[in-house]
Amino acid sequence: MDTAPDPFAAAARTGLDVRRACRDGRLDGSTAGCAPGYVQGNLAVLPQDWATDFLRFCHANPKPCPLLGMSETGDPALPALGADLDIRTDLPRYRVWVDGELVASPTDLMSVWRGDLVSFVIGCSFSFEDALMENDIPLRHISRGCNVPMYRTSIATSPAGRLHGPMVVSMRPLTPADAIRAIQVTTRLPSVHGAPVHIGFPEAIGIEHLGKPDYGDAVALEPGELPVFWACGVTPQAAIAAARPPFAITHAPGCMLVTDLKNSRLSLF
Amino acid sequence: MDTAPDPFAAAARTGLDVRRACRDGRLDGSTAGCAPGYVQGNLAVLPQDWATDFLRFCHANPKPCPLLGMSETGDPALPALGADLDIRTDLPRYRVWVDGELVASPTDLMSVWRGDLVSFVIGCSFSFEDALMENDIPLRHISRGCNVPMYRTSIATSPAGRLHGPMVVSMRPLTPADAIRAIQVTTRLPSVHGAPVHIGFPEAIGIEHLGKPDYGDAVALEPGELPVFWACGVTPQAAIAAARPPFAITHAPGCMLVTDLKNSRLSLF
Repeated sequence: MDTAPDPFAAAARTGLDVRRACRDGRLDGSTAGCAPGYVQGNLAVLPQDWATDFLRFCHANPKPCPLLGMSETGDPALPALGADLDIRTDLPRYRVWVDGELVASPTDLMSVWRGDLVSFVIGCSFSFEDALMENDIPLRHISRGCNVPMYRTSIATSPAGRLHGPMVVSMRPLTPADAIRAIQVTTRLPSVHGAPVHIGFPEAIGIEHLGKPDYGDAVALEPGELPVFWACGVTPQAAIAAARPPFAITHAPGCMLVTDLKNSRLSLF
Repeated sequence: MDTAPDPFAAAARTGLDVRRACRDGRLDGSTAGCAPGYVQGNLAVLPQDWATDFLRFCHANPKPCPLLGMSETGDPALPALGADLDIRTDLPRYRVWVDGELVASPTDLMSVWRGDLVSFVIGCSFSFEDALMENDIPLRHISRGCNVPMYRTSIATSPAGRLHGPMVVSMRPLTPADAIRAIQVTTRLPSVHGAPVHIGFPEAIGIEHLGKPDYGDAVALEPGELPVFWACGVTPQAAIAAARPPFAITHAPGCMLVTDLKNSRLSLF
């Protein structure tokens, strides 16, 4: 792989490939398209005294915060998600937050790691998008090569301790037939956000302008398409940012943890 | 039951109760609400030389024509659907068609039965409406006490022999959240029409005026609701009517066969 002329993404065939490349400094950008078929996850790392609030927040809000794994306190391993996984080195890039302010975007956490940190890995829409594409459902943000549009909504999350805030959703424009199939396909995948939370009326969930997403890029809604909204893993990040814990770490946008889990094994049935 | 002062529907607790009441002449009207929890079905009876076309039509169009059972030629029994079931007497009322024209609406088939007839029983929306209501999804045509609105669409069925024609759909207005849940619930029930065939844009399936259904009664679409369309058991009846077989029998509208099957056992998972 080191000598391959192909871009990295084409060469990284497994989650372990991607994590090793991150650890060795060969990958410091987006994991989109890396290790097709492997589950990627959002990362949140919090001090132990915030971990219970966060765990409760995930439990109370399983659609935006489907918890794939949680570490022991201070332990950078997450053996259930990957052999030899070290959360401090195995993502391409991180964000470090102090008192809710972004202070650094390092490619590893060796200099900031502490013995009181707990890591949480949350399911990500890459997995269900894989399943939608296997079902021949076209995804416009992918065909346009941009990020999915995401919106803060008027749907409140269930608060847990110091964590609360609006649900953030991602939107994909789909034909009615594809929307029905997408609901079926994602219903089978509750560990990666599951079924949509809304379909059809952006204003009903507090979205005024589809063309002005709060995160990601706008994509057009064509005539005859319905906007379909899924709970988004940005929700817990937004709740953490609003709560301003003294210290926190997240993945950098698009720079996910790639696990040893297979998307094909996530399906409930 | 014979002496109960309650309306018949409240007293008929099982499919067998309803069939016995039909046979005894105690019920000659709609089976809506009879024997809650028991599967009701659409009836089509055709001469043997049309039976293969009809069976192929059902096979090719499983969403509008989910076949629950089919008799042996000339045999009025359907033991898989009900103990002691006699298709000639066990529905409240029938329609008899000659060369595509309605010629009679008898309460039994004793005088018109022939040795070459084959009976087909097709799943009916009563079963999935039961499941929707168990999921606290309100159905406007039921709360208004009218029939569900049905429409001929621009969706063609797959032709089979002499049978062809447009798919007929039923429409239920639902909030987006209820629409998503309704898709999940009815996906589990392929033997009673399964998931919707369309959502959102009536004109996309050839329906010009929601307020003017081709069958049943109009119900209003309220602001914030999506029209959700399911394939309808009127489809095979319309195909038979269009093909004008020399002889055919169907149930009278609303006067279904009530079987021994339970709705709760239809769910795929």
